[in-house]
Amino acid sequence: MTASNWSVPETEVVQRVRERVETTETDVLATIVDVEGNAYRRPGAKMLLDEEGGGVGSITAGCLEDELLRQAESVRESGRPELVTYDLMEDDDDVWGLGVGCNGIIDVLLEPLTERYQPAVDAFDAGEDVAIVTVLESDAESLSTGDRLYYYPDGDRFGTPGSEPVAVWPREKLREPAEELADRGRGDVLETTVEGERVDLFVDGLSAPPELVVFGTGHDVGPVVELAKLNDFRVTVVSFRGGVDPEARFPSIDRGMTTSPGTLREDLDLDGNTYAVVMTHNFVDDRLAVDTLLESPVPYVGLMGPRERFEEMLAKFETEGRQIDADERAKLYTPVGLDLGSGSPYGIAHSIVAELLAVVNDCEPRHLTEREGPVHGRVDVASDPDAPTS
Amino acid sequence: MTASNWSVPETEVVQRVRERVETTETDVLATIVDVEGNAYRRPGAKMLLDEEGGGVGSITAGCLEDELLRQAESVRESGRPELVTYDLMEDDDDVWGLGVGCNGIIDVLLEPLTERYQPAVDAFDAGEDVAIVTVLESDAESLSTGDRLYYYPDGDRFGTPGSEPVAVWPREKLREPAEELADRGRGDVLETTVEGERVDLFVDGLSAPPELVVFGTGHDVGPVVELAKLNDFRVTVVSFRGGVDPEARFPSIDRGMTTSPGTLREDLDLDGNTYAVVMTHNFVDDRLAVDTLLESPVPYVGLMGPRERFEEMLAKFETEGRQIDADERAKLYTPVGLDLGSGSPYGIAHSIVAELLAVVNDCEPRHLTEREGPVHGRVDVASDPDAPTS
Repeated sequence: MTASNWSVPETEVVQRVRERVETTETDVLATIVDVEGNAYRRPGAKMLLDEEGGGVGSITAGCLEDELLRQAESVRESGRPELVTYDLMEDDDDVWGLGVGCNGIIDVLLEPLTERYQPAVDAFDAGEDVAIVTVLESDAESLSTGDRLYYYPDGDRFGTPGSEPVAVWPREKLREPAEELADRGRGDVLETTVEGERVDLFVDGLSAPPELVVFGTGHDVGPVVELAKLNDFRVTVVSFRGGVDPEARFPSIDRGMTTSPGTLREDLDLDGNTYAVVMTHNFVDDRLAVDTLLESPVPYVGLMGPRERFEEMLAKFETEGRQIDADERAKLYTPVGLDLGSGSPYGIAHSIVAELLAVVNDCEPRHLTEREGPVHGRVDVASDPDAPTS
Repeated sequence: MTASNWSVPETEVVQRVRERVETTETDVLATIVDVEGNAYRRPGAKMLLDEEGGGVGSITAGCLEDELLRQAESVRESGRPELVTYDLMEDDDDVWGLGVGCNGIIDVLLEPLTERYQPAVDAFDAGEDVAIVTVLESDAESLSTGDRLYYYPDGDRFGTPGSEPVAVWPREKLREPAEELADRGRGDVLETTVEGERVDLFVDGLSAPPELVVFGTGHDVGPVVELAKLNDFRVTVVSFRGGVDPEARFPSIDRGMTTSPGTLREDLDLDGNTYAVVMTHNFVDDRLAVDTLLESPVPYVGLMGPRERFEEMLAKFETEGRQIDADERAKLYTPVGLDLGSGSPYGIAHSIVAELLAVVNDCEPRHLTEREGPVHGRVDVASDPDAPTS
C-alpha cells in the first residue's frame, strides 16, 4: 500500500468499494460512527481494509489506522460487524503511542464488506442520495447489531439487503433524520425504540456527489477539472463548437459533450445538484449559456471574466428584453472564484474550486480562525425522545 | 505537446526555462508586458515556445497561443526581440476568430531565449527576488529594444547579461518601482528618460516563490503538499521523530527534514517568505513548533486542530510563563484553513492552501463577485513625470 491510497478523493473510496464488493469477501469497511470532542475526520468517513494490510481512505491522519488493521483481522475472522471505541483524548503526561492528537473519542463501525453494501454503491453511481441505517446495539428481539436498512429520500423508498424484512424497522421515526443526513452527506447516531426496547442506530448519509459542468475547452479548463475531481465533483465539460474533443483534452473528466447553446436544456440535466462554470472565452457562447443556466434550477453559475464584461452582457440581455431578476443575480458569481490573489492557471482554478466548495457546503468562506463554533458544522438529528436512556 | 504543458505551475515554466537556456538556442520566450482592459493572465505571465511548435506555460486560455507560435517563428529567424500587440477587444458582430473573449489589448514581448536570461533563473533558484528590466522602445542612442538590466532588491544590486554596461541605465529612477514589482511578483511598463530621450521599459518582477514548511508526516500531509506544489510553493516537510522519511512518503516535496523541536531555529531558515503549517497531531510537538514559529519572522502559522485544543495549548504556554502577544496571535491561524465546509482529506487541504494563497497575496478571501475593483489588483508603478509623452 502506498501513501497515496490513504488520502484519496472520497469518490475513489466508493469506487474501490464498488470494485471489491463483487470480487472479494475478505475486505473490511471501517466507518466513523461518532466523535466526542474533535477529530480530523467526521462521522461517515470511511476506510476499506484488505487482507494484505492495505487500505483505501482514511479515518485519522494515520496513527489509528494500524489499530484498525488489527481490528479488521478480528472482524474478518468472526464475519460479524463490530463497534470499536478509540479514546484519543490527549494527556500531556500520557500521550497515547506517538499521540494521535485528535482530542476526541471515536466510535468506529467495522463490518465485513459483502453484497449487503451493494445498494449504497448503486445509489452513489446513480447520483441518488441514500441513508445507510445500521443497528449498533439493540435490546429489541427483531433487530440485531449489523442489521441494515436503506432509505432513499428521492421517491421516499426503504430497502433492505437481500430479502430481509423491512417492516421491523421504525420507518416513521427514521424518515426525517435520514433524509436530512442523506442530503447533507453526514452521519449521526440515533437512539430510538423498537417494540418498546432501546435500539441505537447509525444513520450514514451518502450524498450524491455534486455535478460540475464546465463550459469551455481552453487550457485554463484543465486545472479546474483536476482540482474539482480531487474534491469529489462529477465533471462534465461542454464544447460548443466541436473544435476540441473534451474527453481527449481532459482525460480525467466523467463526461464530455459537444453541443450548441440552443439545445443545452435538453442535453444536460440541470438540476439542483449541478454547479456550472462558464469559461468559453466567447462572449456570445457565454451569454447564451448563462441565459439558460440562470433559468434552470442550478444553484451556482460561475462566469469567468471581469465585471465589465458581465455588465456588457447585462446590457445585451436588456436590449433583448431578458430581465435578470434578483434570484438569478444571486446565483451568478462573476468574477468567478474567491479573492485569493493568485494569477496563475492553478491559482485561478484553486479559487474557483474553493468557491464551489463554499457554495456546495453553504459556508461563508472566511478564515476558520475568525469563526465561532466547531470546524465541522455538525448535523445533529433529533433522537427519539421516548427512547429509554442508558 | 500535450495539453498539460499549457496549464502548469509557474515554477514549472521557470524550470523549463532553466533546462532550455543551456541546451537550445531556438526557443522563444513570450511574456505579457501590458494589458489594456482585462485578460485571463496579467503582465509577467510567460510561455516558452519551442521550434517544434510546442509550448510550456500560457498567456491566454488558448486561442492566442497559435498566433504566438507563428510570431515566434519570426523572432527565431531574426534573432531579435519583438513587441507584438494583440487586440482582443470584443465585438459582438465581429468576433476575432472564435473569440478569445479577453476584452483587452495585450502587449507581448517575444525574445530568443539565450544565456542573457540566465541571471533571472539563477535568482529564482536562489530564492531571491529579481526585477528583469527590458527596453521596449528607445529614442536614446545608448539603449535599444531588448537591452536588459537585472535589479536585485536584496543587496540593492544591479547587473547586466555578459559584460554589457550598467552605467547607461537610469538606475536611480528604476530602484523603487523595480523593488516593489520584484517583491510582489508583478510586471509593469515604465516610461522614463535617458539622455533626455524617451525610453519605454518593461519591469518584470520575478518574486522568489514562497516557502511552505509543513510539520508532520501523517497521511493528511499528502494532499496539502500536492496542492501547495501546484500553487508554486517550495515545500519542506519536517518530521520530528524520524519514524517516517518525508521524502520517501511525499516524493514531490522540495526537501524533507528530520529534526527535533528544540533545534528548529537553527535547522530552518524561518524568514518573512516562509509559511508554516503545523499538523504533527502530537500536542507536545505542535506546541513546541508553534512556540518557535511565533517568535520567528514567519508571517503565517497554521495550526491543525480544533479551537479547544489551541486553548489548551494557550493554557500550557501560560503555566510556562510564555505569553502570546497580539502580533503572535494575529499570525496564528487555528483552526487552519478557510471555511469551505469540506471534511475530506483533499477538501481540508484545499481550504488550507486557499488560506495560504490569501495570506501570501494579502487578500480578504471573500467571493470576487462581492468585491469592488478589478480581479487582478494591479500594481501600477509611477512612470517618470519628466518623460516626453508619445
